[in-house]
Amino acid sequence: MPQNRFVVPFAEGSRDQRTLLGGKGANLAEMTRLGLPVPEGFIVTTEACRAYLKSEELPEGLMDEVHAELRKLEEVAGKKLGDPDDPLLLSVRSGAPFSMPGMMDTVLNLGMHEKAVEGLARVSSDERFAWDAYRRLIQLYGKIVMGVSGERFDEALAETTSARGGDEGDLTAEDFQQLSRRFLDIVVEDTGMQFPQDPYEQLEGAIRAVFRSWNGKRARDYRRYEGIPDDLGTAVNIQRMVFGNVGEASGTGVAFTRDPATGERVPYGDWLEGAQGEDVVAGIRVTQPLEGLAERFPDCHQDLLRVMRTLEDHERDMCDIEFTIEHGKLFMLQTRVGKRSAIAALRIAVDMVEEGLIDTDEAVRRVKPEQLEQLLHPQFSPDVEYDALTTGLAASPGAATGKVVFTADAAEQWAEQGEKVILVRPETSPDDLHGMVSAEGILTSRGGLVSHAAVVARGMGKPAVCGASELSIDVPGRTFRVGDVELSEGDIVSISGNSGQVVVGEVPVWIPEPSGPFETLLAWADDIRRLGIRTNADTGPDAARAVQFGAEGIGLCRTEHMFFGDRLPVVRRMLLADSDETRQSALEELRSVQREDFASVLREMDGLPATVRLLDPPLHEFLPDITELAVKEALGELDAEGDALLAAARRLDEENPMLGTRGCRLGIMQPDIYKMQVRALMQAAVDVHREGVTPVVEIMVPLIVDGTELALITGWIHEAAQEVLSDAGESIPYLVGTMIETPRAALTAGAVAPEAEFFSFGTNDLTQMAYGFSRDDIEGSIMSTYLSEGLLDDNPFSTLDLDGVGRLVDIAVKEGKAANSELKCGICGEHGGDPNSIAFSHEVGLDYVSCSPFRVPVARLAAAHAALGVLGPASTA
Amino acid sequence: MPQNRFVVPFAEGSRDQRTLLGGKGANLAEMTRLGLPVPEGFIVTTEACRAYLKSEELPEGLMDEVHAELRKLEEVAGKKLGDPDDPLLLSVRSGAPFSMPGMMDTVLNLGMHEKAVEGLARVSSDERFAWDAYRRLIQLYGKIVMGVSGERFDEALAETTSARGGDEGDLTAEDFQQLSRRFLDIVVEDTGMQFPQDPYEQLEGAIRAVFRSWNGKRARDYRRYEGIPDDLGTAVNIQRMVFGNVGEASGTGVAFTRDPATGERVPYGDWLEGAQGEDVVAGIRVTQPLEGLAERFPDCHQDLLRVMRTLEDHERDMCDIEFTIEHGKLFMLQTRVGKRSAIAALRIAVDMVEEGLIDTDEAVRRVKPEQLEQLLHPQFSPDVEYDALTTGLAASPGAATGKVVFTADAAEQWAEQGEKVILVRPETSPDDLHGMVSAEGILTSRGGLVSHAAVVARGMGKPAVCGASELSIDVPGRTFRVGDVELSEGDIVSISGNSGQVVVGEVPVWIPEPSGPFETLLAWADDIRRLGIRTNADTGPDAARAVQFGAEGIGLCRTEHMFFGDRLPVVRRMLLADSDETRQSALEELRSVQREDFASVLREMDGLPATVRLLDPPLHEFLPDITELAVKEALGELDAEGDALLAAARRLDEENPMLGTRGCRLGIMQPDIYKMQVRALMQAAVDVHREGVTPVVEIMVPLIVDGTELALITGWIHEAAQEVLSDAGESIPYLVGTMIETPRAALTAGAVAPEAEFFSFGTNDLTQMAYGFSRDDIEGSIMSTYLSEGLLDDNPFSTLDLDGVGRLVDIAVKEGKAANSELKCGICGEHGGDPNSIAFSHEVGLDYVSCSPFRVPVARLAAAHAALGVLGPASTA
Repeated sequence: MPQNRFVVPFAEGSRDQRTLLGGKGANLAEMTRLGLPVPEGFIVTTEACRAYLKSEELPEGLMDEVHAELRKLEEVAGKKLGDPDDPLLLSVRSGAPFSMPGMMDTVLNLGMHEKAVEGLARVSSDERFAWDAYRRLIQLYGKIVMGVSGERFDEALAETTSARGGDEGDLTAEDFQQLSRRFLDIVVEDTGMQFPQDPYEQLEGAIRAVFRSWNGKRARDYRRYEGIPDDLGTAVNIQRMVFGNVGEASGTGVAFTRDPATGERVPYGDWLEGAQGEDVVAGIRVTQPLEGLAERFPDCHQDLLRVMRTLEDHERDMCDIEFTIEHGKLFMLQTRVGKRSAIAALRIAVDMVEEGLIDTDEAVRRVKPEQLEQLLHPQFSPDVEYDALTTGLAASPGAATGKVVFTADAAEQWAEQGEKVILVRPETSPDDLHGMVSAEGILTSRGGLVSHAAVVARGMGKPAVCGASELSIDVPGRTFRVGDVELSEGDIVSISGNSGQVVVGEVPVWIPEPSGPFETLLAWADDIRRLGIRTNADTGPDAARAVQFGAEGIGLCRTEHMFFGDRLPVVRRMLLADSDETRQSALEELRSVQREDFASVLREMDGLPATVRLLDPPLHEFLPDITELAVKEALGELDAEGDALLAAARRLDEENPMLGTRGCRLGIMQPDIYKMQVRALMQAAVDVHREGVTPVVEIMVPLIVDGTELALITGWIHEAAQEVLSDAGESIPYLVGTMIETPRAALTAGAVAPEAEFFSFGTNDLTQMAYGFSRDDIEGSIMSTYLSEGLLDDNPFSTLDLDGVGRLVDIAVKEGKAANSELKCGICGEHGGDPNSIAFSHEVGLDYVSCSPFRVPVARLAAAHAALGVLGPASTA
Repeated sequence: MPQNRFVVPFAEGSRDQRTLLGGKGANLAEMTRLGLPVPEGFIVTTEACRAYLKSEELPEGLMDEVHAELRKLEEVAGKKLGDPDDPLLLSVRSGAPFSMPGMMDTVLNLGMHEKAVEGLARVSSDERFAWDAYRRLIQLYGKIVMGVSGERFDEALAETTSARGGDEGDLTAEDFQQLSRRFLDIVVEDTGMQFPQDPYEQLEGAIRAVFRSWNGKRARDYRRYEGIPDDLGTAVNIQRMVFGNVGEASGTGVAFTRDPATGERVPYGDWLEGAQGEDVVAGIRVTQPLEGLAERFPDCHQDLLRVMRTLEDHERDMCDIEFTIEHGKLFMLQTRVGKRSAIAALRIAVDMVEEGLIDTDEAVRRVKPEQLEQLLHPQFSPDVEYDALTTGLAASPGAATGKVVFTADAAEQWAEQGEKVILVRPETSPDDLHGMVSAEGILTSRGGLVSHAAVVARGMGKPAVCGASELSIDVPGRTFRVGDVELSEGDIVSISGNSGQVVVGEVPVWIPEPSGPFETLLAWADDIRRLGIRTNADTGPDAARAVQFGAEGIGLCRTEHMFFGDRLPVVRRMLLADSDETRQSALEELRSVQREDFASVLREMDGLPATVRLLDPPLHEFLPDITELAVKEALGELDAEGDALLAAARRLDEENPMLGTRGCRLGIMQPDIYKMQVRALMQAAVDVHREGVTPVVEIMVPLIVDGTELALITGWIHEAAQEVLSDAGESIPYLVGTMIETPRAALTAGAVAPEAEFFSFGTNDLTQMAYGFSRDDIEGSIMSTYLSEGLLDDNPFSTLDLDGVGRLVDIAVKEGKAANSELKCGICGEHGGDPNSIAFSHEVGLDYVSCSPFRVPVARLAAAHAALGVLGPASTA
């Protein structure tokens, strides 16, 4: 007998052959190998599919092999395909190596034909069943293989059912017979072709249909989205039908070996008596809990529990299964590792370690960082239905409900009166900070994932939806519109920063409680990971929260936020100073408050490193909007101070502030600002040291383009720091390093590294400059067009672009460490909290990542995954 | 006798030993070797200097070697150092491997001392000469070696001279004797030390002083500026004095073997009878032309001509020499390759090929691209003195004088009345184009070397000074101020785009005439170079001019300029369209005019490639300023159209337009604009083809970040182009390629190249993004601070930054050509016309550079230099 090329019987396969047999087939083969009750069958391999996709012809010899396997199947079953007296019926199911929605699913009862109805009725002693089986085949085959609109069948069925009082269970054999006739007509009307009465023709048609469905639009879209290669192909599972809807003592159901919602160690499932699998899934009939099975068919229930134990012990994971009971005998139709909620994933992983089923590495592997994140933020309750008014960018996770307000002041006033508010703005600026603090959540019509609103909201751990571009906001009028819907101040909206959805009215919110397993799993993750996890925190309270979440230091403490609020007038006095004296006195005032700022951060970090970045943003951000002032000027409403502000705003205005007087350029042009900051920081270090705290100070220079630039500033820093320390008579060690956030700094890292004690990659700016993308300007409609057109795989501001930006990081780490073996390297952009980017950071040899406090647990887990070599979703291929 | 380690006698050196002997010493040795009359001497090598600089001690044995050589010199001269009866006098001169201003120059008459005056007076029979020689030594030695302020000596000399009627020639021996006494006192008063009477002490002091002067501030600054390494050190030339100021038949002079101003093949020089070298240089006494020497000392004149011929035949270049005649005998004191004007350089190079002295490669090597550039633009006349009011950036070469105007309209009106005007603006925008066309030159207070004003001016070949930040311009008041100086409309100013100078009033302008040698040399250069030279030209006339200058194609034809002027209303109609119909009709109108635009360019290029870049700039540039409109709105002065414009301007406004909806992002968001342009271009190709012209069309996509982006647009381009061609029934080949102007495009070039037929590096944007420098915002005060602080070696927008931007280009060329061996690569940024950047382009394997029409000749020469391996100034080290 020649070796099969394209067909593998269940008994000869195993679960290691997913690529060849598809997931479903491999699991059916495995269950057969384990001796579990699987109806006989065989698999047409993915290789056959690949051959078909190339030539658009079934490969030569395929159908011969199928027929040969069928012969064996017929022998075991004692029935023959097409036999009018006792027809063998088949189920034909697709099964790709990866679970893939959008592909052809299942054709049941294949092999039924006009002349076999009577025979089937006879052997099953159930005429109604026989006609039902026939009409089901016509319906499924017509829809799935022949492309008939499913609605026409559904309508015809509904018509008949309602004529019989509305319950499908009340339909008679005659009803199904008539329905079969009607369905046959529908096929002809819709396709111009007859439903094939030849079972062999049906079989070949079904195999072709499965193969073709690999390239259906939804399947292709799904693959592109998930990064699954297009050339894998799908297998076809051909299996003897067993019937849960025939005679007595039959039924069908689905079950999980543990509770998929809570993770509790109890089997969980639904079943239906006298039904086929699709009836359970369709949700038309009310299913019974698994306990009912124990009462109704205790033997089958015992068998099922035994099978579940066998599977779980074998898979060492929670499994879900589909089963059918035919004439009191249990059959397994499918199994796979079961999907579970985030909380269940956590609990099952931790439980299974305690049960000795898996080790801690495996437990850590089993929980996705994204799942952990879900556990940390409130979400729209999964049990509630709602309609989204519009959808923006999911900018900061969490969900919130509140009354709409349009200004930061209003947010503050309403919040003081005990109202929960959602701050709705075209975009936010540092001036809105107090309003953001007061609001439950933030909704903007402009700006992207790294807009001010998004970054600040993530830092605060508050939900935000940004760039909801359908919103037309009238701030003075205190209304916003989406299409015809208009909302006014005080109206209630709910936003989900997980999904980007905006909903009118209240959506109940659900806050999963991080529990014991949470801490247990993260402790295991900490043992596994090599990457350090730091946090981006600008204030003492932020720092404290991050330490609670397990941060091992601050990777980025921004100082620009410290220049707003009640310091703004002082900053403006500095900028507008007409004498050096005025300027110095303003600087002195700032130094004194910054000293307090820094002390409060260092106190919280006691013994952990705190990386403080010197002032970064464009100076003009500290001044009011030019247009606003110019209008006032034209109206004669500007006083002398206003005139001065307008003049200063014009002087400091830049065409492209993102590429202007930022970062250390500011330091080079106005060294006294940096020197003031260093003095304040080192004085704070001395202050807290005298309180018994251990300050670990790292001073970071932003936005350099060249080593000489860094050397100049480093000189100033040491000078100012040494002055403070020697005045105080203290000796406190500190490091000086730099952000690497311009492409040139990365490309010349070998020359920068000797001047630096650490590099911190500012991947936000690096992404901006590598792409020439201004985050604020691009992340609205351009980014969504690029993503939807497939021009970008991911938003590069969320997930690090490995080809361009990643390559720059790679170059800089390699050449930087080669030039300075002591160099510490970390990442402190938004990417520091993104699991895929953390995997990259691990591989490229960074020492730590830094992310917002709320993402620290996620980062700890993602870093462990990276150390374990777990591939992120983007690397699935 | 032990081998000398640190001292080389003239007779044993040669001109190949510049590094060891310094330039002056090597040439003195060479002349000695050639048998020319050089006073005997020897050289303390740069090695001795390097040893001294390390240890700050004269190396052991050095003075012994010096003394030993001195013995031999004394023997030949028949005199002894320090001999009171007939003292040997020495000249001591520094001589570094590179000509270096700022170092110690010369001590003459070393060896004189109090007791030797009488002896020298006796042997020279000239008491006045003897006392003069003594006072000269005290003066030079005191000033140069001992650090006495030169002014005190000068004052004392002037006092005595004026007491004698004002002519130094009238001073008597007694006067010089008294001056010597006074000078000795000055030395003591100023230094607290006695002038050393011991000639050996004098000699050692002079050697130390030369060594020390290597590290003087001016010398170090100069080396940093010229890129000369700090560890080369200088040699010291020690030589028997000859006197042009002793007895009868003496004199001294300088001469060139050809005219250094015109290049004419006639010796040229100045001399003075009865004088020492410093008298000629000091310019106090009126020198005689060389012809006078023929009359006064005909034998010496003949000797001098003979020497000059020998030197020129030997050097195969124009030489300058210093000579002295002592008692009727000619001595050579120095020679080197002579400095010359640009026009002379050109003429000498071409003449010497005709004379058979050098080959064409060498001739091409002899003319610097920068010199050629001087020949192409008017300049401030070199004979005229003037004071600069202020200095800005030399943004576009050339010089111009005209009346100040402050608006484009005024420029146009005044020019129509026959006035020559200089357009003075804070900065220019496309709206000012008509004024720039009308003006002689442009002066702006803001913006850098690639600001609108600078780029457009260079394109027009008009002089421009940009970023003259001291200018405070009051446009409505029609005045500008620099400090206390205020100028009003109609006042005359002159600007030099070569030096950046702004001068009140008229400075005569001199326009060198490109001549026969110009064409000859460039033809030789064309034979040598490998790089193609294209031009950046947007219009037919520009293209025609560039072809005249030798351009071999257009590397960059920008289409955005075509959207301004009388097309602006149509563009605005497109942007404001409230229906697709209006929009399409505006697009159709644009297509029709663009077709003419393109036809006029293609006609001029007949048979040469024309690379047309699809529309690039931010759309909001086509709308008026928001603040201006907002003010009008507030004042109730806005009509309906104004309202629409304001709304559109707000909608299209971007925080950072340079990183916003630019380049192909515009094409992706509004594909019909690109399709319209392609249709217009291909229709133009068909039109001119039917006229018998050969169109060679290259279509270029701007600002891509990824290969998939390019693939999408390339698809559209081919679709639109094929449609036009098949409608016309013509088959015209065309290429489609892309700009590489984002770092990411360069870093992913391997994935971009298969989608492109050519790469054109937009190094302006690449520089902007690699550095995070917005040209407009950075090139003012930040750039000048960075340059003056030494944080940048060059303005990276003028000279390509090799370490960062160059590395990106290198990566992209290598990986692009590896992925697509047919890929053509060129550069079309501002750097395409910069000689250093052209050298890099050659080395990195680009196929062509593209620059503005007026720089094409410069680029042709620079490309030949690159092929010859001539190092640019930045690579001297």
